[in-house]
Amino acid sequence: MSDVDFYAARMDRAVRAAVQEGLAGLVVAPGPDLVWLCGYEPVTTERLTALLLLPDRKPWLVVPHLERPDAEKAPGAGALRIAGWADGENPYAEIVKALDPQGRYGVSDNAWALHLLALQRSLPGTAYAALTEAMPMLRAVKDAYELERLAAAGAAADATYEAIVELPFGGRRENEVAADLARLLRENGHSQVDFTIVGSGPNGANPHHEAGDRMIEEGDMVVLDFGGLKDGYGSDTTRTVHVGEPTSEERKVHDLVREAQQAAFEAVRPGVACQEIDRVARQVIRKAGYGEYFIHRTGHGIGVTTHEPPYMVEGEHLPLVPGMCFSIEPGIYLPGRFGVRIEDIVACTDSGARRLNNTARELRTVS
Amino acid sequence: MSDVDFYAARMDRAVRAAVQEGLAGLVVAPGPDLVWLCGYEPVTTERLTALLLLPDRKPWLVVPHLERPDAEKAPGAGALRIAGWADGENPYAEIVKALDPQGRYGVSDNAWALHLLALQRSLPGTAYAALTEAMPMLRAVKDAYELERLAAAGAAADATYEAIVELPFGGRRENEVAADLARLLRENGHSQVDFTIVGSGPNGANPHHEAGDRMIEEGDMVVLDFGGLKDGYGSDTTRTVHVGEPTSEERKVHDLVREAQQAAFEAVRPGVACQEIDRVARQVIRKAGYGEYFIHRTGHGIGVTTHEPPYMVEGEHLPLVPGMCFSIEPGIYLPGRFGVRIEDIVACTDSGARRLNNTARELRTVS
Repeated sequence: MSDVDFYAARMDRAVRAAVQEGLAGLVVAPGPDLVWLCGYEPVTTERLTALLLLPDRKPWLVVPHLERPDAEKAPGAGALRIAGWADGENPYAEIVKALDPQGRYGVSDNAWALHLLALQRSLPGTAYAALTEAMPMLRAVKDAYELERLAAAGAAADATYEAIVELPFGGRRENEVAADLARLLRENGHSQVDFTIVGSGPNGANPHHEAGDRMIEEGDMVVLDFGGLKDGYGSDTTRTVHVGEPTSEERKVHDLVREAQQAAFEAVRPGVACQEIDRVARQVIRKAGYGEYFIHRTGHGIGVTTHEPPYMVEGEHLPLVPGMCFSIEPGIYLPGRFGVRIEDIVACTDSGARRLNNTARELRTVS
Repeated sequence: MSDVDFYAARMDRAVRAAVQEGLAGLVVAPGPDLVWLCGYEPVTTERLTALLLLPDRKPWLVVPHLERPDAEKAPGAGALRIAGWADGENPYAEIVKALDPQGRYGVSDNAWALHLLALQRSLPGTAYAALTEAMPMLRAVKDAYELERLAAAGAAADATYEAIVELPFGGRRENEVAADLARLLRENGHSQVDFTIVGSGPNGANPHHEAGDRMIEEGDMVVLDFGGLKDGYGSDTTRTVHVGEPTSEERKVHDLVREAQQAAFEAVRPGVACQEIDRVARQVIRKAGYGEYFIHRTGHGIGVTTHEPPYMVEGEHLPLVPGMCFSIEPGIYLPGRFGVRIEDIVACTDSGARRLNNTARELRTVS
């Protein structure tokens, strides 16, 4: 299939799904929705770029006039009508004429308030719903092509992990190890590195600590959480390693997180609600008395971004469907002491789940 | 003044200005508004982070629970009440209770539609206005501290230009020169590089061409447009150089752009409408018969971002005020042939304008 046919089919599916949800169309902003739908990835600025998907109309990309040459090079450009607007013109004028003044439209989650407010002001009778709320399934179920890309990104993350644990940790700073992770991800084919968390000792107890200038020491637990995009699809994996021999408590906490991760993995099958995956992991940790130290949801979807629906979180009733890909990443964070997190990307299959990260989850000692 | 007092004063000024505009308060999203108001710069994700500025209330930062440790390290954190929400909780619950159900609020331009729609759904009687539309002056007028930072960023960009023109162009690819620009910006103190445009020959005729693998040749015009952030404030400068001796036409087009840039610079003074700056530059180019080849606005504001209000564009009636800092960057783009753009950052002063970029604007030949 040509690129143009490939993206045309995606846009066609999206607009059909929108109509089924009672929407009059979709207003797509630069970001993951746009790149997924037509392959175009402009820099986001205050100038309006929007893709309009309306039934019985050719997909219509509105771009700043001076970015038109770039838009015309997008892989899906051949399936689009591209219309430019010049500085000083009203960028909404043409869109407003094309929308049903009483219609309800899906809009990208990350569309700017500036643009949404302009549409609401111009057409006060229109209504809008965030795309991940109105159509959570739009990008959530991956096809065979996408599964292959995600598996390749996962394999690259695995190779990165196998290489990083051969390097010294003790006596180096967190940000030196983080730089190695970024380098290794790129060497393994990533075009974009989104995060390289190295949380050593007490820093590991802050789940979103990135990497600082703390010197890693013998006896530290070190959380390694890294990922990015390879060929347009995401990786995101976490392993927690130990510099030298762990104490029995450290080993116990790590075993517990591993058990929770495995239990959640085994709970994956079509029809199970996303929140159930979170509950299963949480229950293992809670039972062992560490419930208050597991302070985030169990997982998030992954695709053309490293964070997207579906979310494995209490309150998410969406049922799992074969092809959904997401992280399972329970953790325990002991303030001022250390943290442990273990994360794999998994794909829901007809019969259960398949891991897209495959390095060993046992506690590994590094030097 | 301590960091805390510094940011507290900014937030206080912002909320007073909001009230003067008839707003019931401000809802500030991660990005330039947030970093300007309290120094906090989280990674933007689907999880809600918002700063609420309401009269007679301590500034209130709502953050995902697991990012709270990072928020508490922000330079302005001491002036904030920081409230965390945990995964699975409704992140809007507390905000909704604090807002006036009939109030009109200013909201960051780049706030996500997802979050704005949630507020609108919870409080259907509230109204919202984009911050740059409701309060275009909020960040537009720079104080002495900010002018100093912008001048330092401009000086670093000047030093970058003086170094790049000493390097060879002919026989190297655009992206090699772009990599040198990025390296030089960093060597000159930039912490972030936002763009390094190298548009050689016909590529220069696409104003937003970044840098590709085209080999630069003897006889090429080359547009160099580069900038980023130094100590939190932006640089953005453009010079067009020539590899070897230019033709008389190339020299003529360059002279014309330089004349337009100078005329616009000389038109800057308090009280003049922004659109007038655009008109003055455009008039020079139009008179010489090149009007159709100047395909973008003349300039944009700069501060904690490299693109912000005020915009020097037809239809922008906002009058210039001493302390406003913005680009003046006319250009001529001859499709398939070459482009010329000359850009300086200037500050409006009591008596006119001051350039924050100071390298020579005459056409420079490079090797």
